[in-house]
Amino acid sequence: MRLSELGEAGLLLELERRGLTAGLDREGVWDGERAVTQDALVDGIHFRREWTSWRDLGYKAAAVNLSDLAAMGAEPEGLLVSLGLPPDTLVAAVLDLYEGLNEPGVAVLGGDTVAAPVVFVGVTALGRSGRVPGRAGARPGDLLVVTGPLGGAAAGLYALEQGLEGFDDLVRTHRRPPFRLAEGRRLAVVARAMLDVSDGILADAGKIAERSGCRVVVDVERLPLAARLGEVADLPFWALGEDYELLAALPSEEARASGFPIVGRCEEGSGVEPADPGGWDAFRRG
Amino acid sequence: MRLSELGEAGLLLELERRGLTAGLDREGVWDGERAVTQDALVDGIHFRREWTSWRDLGYKAAAVNLSDLAAMGAEPEGLLVSLGLPPDTLVAAVLDLYEGLNEPGVAVLGGDTVAAPVVFVGVTALGRSGRVPGRAGARPGDLLVVTGPLGGAAAGLYALEQGLEGFDDLVRTHRRPPFRLAEGRRLAVVARAMLDVSDGILADAGKIAERSGCRVVVDVERLPLAARLGEVADLPFWALGEDYELLAALPSEEARASGFPIVGRCEEGSGVEPADPGGWDAFRRG
Repeated sequence: MRLSELGEAGLLLELERRGLTAGLDREGVWDGERAVTQDALVDGIHFRREWTSWRDLGYKAAAVNLSDLAAMGAEPEGLLVSLGLPPDTLVAAVLDLYEGLNEPGVAVLGGDTVAAPVVFVGVTALGRSGRVPGRAGARPGDLLVVTGPLGGAAAGLYALEQGLEGFDDLVRTHRRPPFRLAEGRRLAVVARAMLDVSDGILADAGKIAERSGCRVVVDVERLPLAARLGEVADLPFWALGEDYELLAALPSEEARASGFPIVGRCEEGSGVEPADPGGWDAFRRG
Repeated sequence: MRLSELGEAGLLLELERRGLTAGLDREGVWDGERAVTQDALVDGIHFRREWTSWRDLGYKAAAVNLSDLAAMGAEPEGLLVSLGLPPDTLVAAVLDLYEGLNEPGVAVLGGDTVAAPVVFVGVTALGRSGRVPGRAGARPGDLLVVTGPLGGAAAGLYALEQGLEGFDDLVRTHRRPPFRLAEGRRLAVVARAMLDVSDGILADAGKIAERSGCRVVVDVERLPLAARLGEVADLPFWALGEDYELLAALPSEEARASGFPIVGRCEEGSGVEPADPGGWDAFRRG
């Protein structure tokens, strides 16, 4: 069987079943104090060099990892960068990339730079967290909240792909996704489960359902959406991920007190409602 | 200017000069307690799939990072793995890779798996160390020790490249380089500078010379060499790196008491003697 058939989620479950990795029910590793996350961007897969400036690429590589720290309720301490670059890359381009990596204000502490036939940017983010909700603690009766509007990044990418003009705000959301560190630290104190919706809200809600052993119902009509999605195309951009907002399951009282929009609930059962129209899976869609 | 002209060392100095990364005078990051290293292997650059089994690749990706922890005197706690794989990769191959990653006995705690046009394996190794010698503390009068024989990995790779038969021991050193965790922890207590000779002993001695502000003289005749190097070819395999032995600068008394072979000394001045016939630089040789 090939990865394209099994998919990323299937691979991770198989590795876990064989004891070849520890629990994968969090965005990263946590020892009760330190949080560590790792995520890589690869040219042609996660970005396209012709649409992405080096500086934006650096920013995004930092942002996706800081978003994972946010989902762990962590205060960031620093980044380690593992760069793969063709030897004919301009030095000025690498300096721009590092300017972008530094832009979120979290120090680049070191890393490794290697020659590669394709550009990739791997980042390890280090932080501290007193409580990591993980994905396994949601209970029937919990309510779901989301920290901000969905669909902007996917719509911005679509606008780029289709050559549509006049959607600079959405394109910017694709290139410079927000990450929710302060919100993550606040929610981590009370959340029963939390992750970022990088893979799409239904796919990510499905991870909570599977790990927590409950059914997750998303009220699609209540989802906060980025402005002007419908002008780009009649597509479910809100389900496609890359938004890096946080999705958290909270006891109902804490959810209502949080001030964030309530977008769903946990029930007895399993699975996600509505069915996922197709979130991101590295290998199935790669 | 392109990376191939500036070289990896030049790039790192330029990034540091501009304040875009913190100090690069260690194998990784250390906060007084936790040590974190990061190193990536890329197909066609650091290994060739046709000569490397998936299991060996996993082992080596773990080993090169454990060697960096060794140079920081650290006790390993776990690995994070960032895998780039073409979607048509066999699932069985990935399981073999993970078997190799787990083989050194340090748990794989998690990580990230992404679709990529070329295989790469990025590893972040986490550990604890009470003292990291770094590269900047060597003083005139210090002696250099090395923890084991050099040249085996480079000669093994050469034998593979040239199709030479009968050098299984050297080929094995290339595929399964030893890493010196126990030696690293012991030496870290007294070493003034320490690193692994992954780039070649003269190139790595040069890093100590540059960071410590002294001259480093290597007694080439005293270097411990892997057996049968001369039968492979009349080449300076000992200078080509990928050995992952540790090179440490110690006060002379501690060097003599260490039991490791003394292979050089630090003097007033700068630079390395003899001149480097050419160690590994990711971009100059990539």
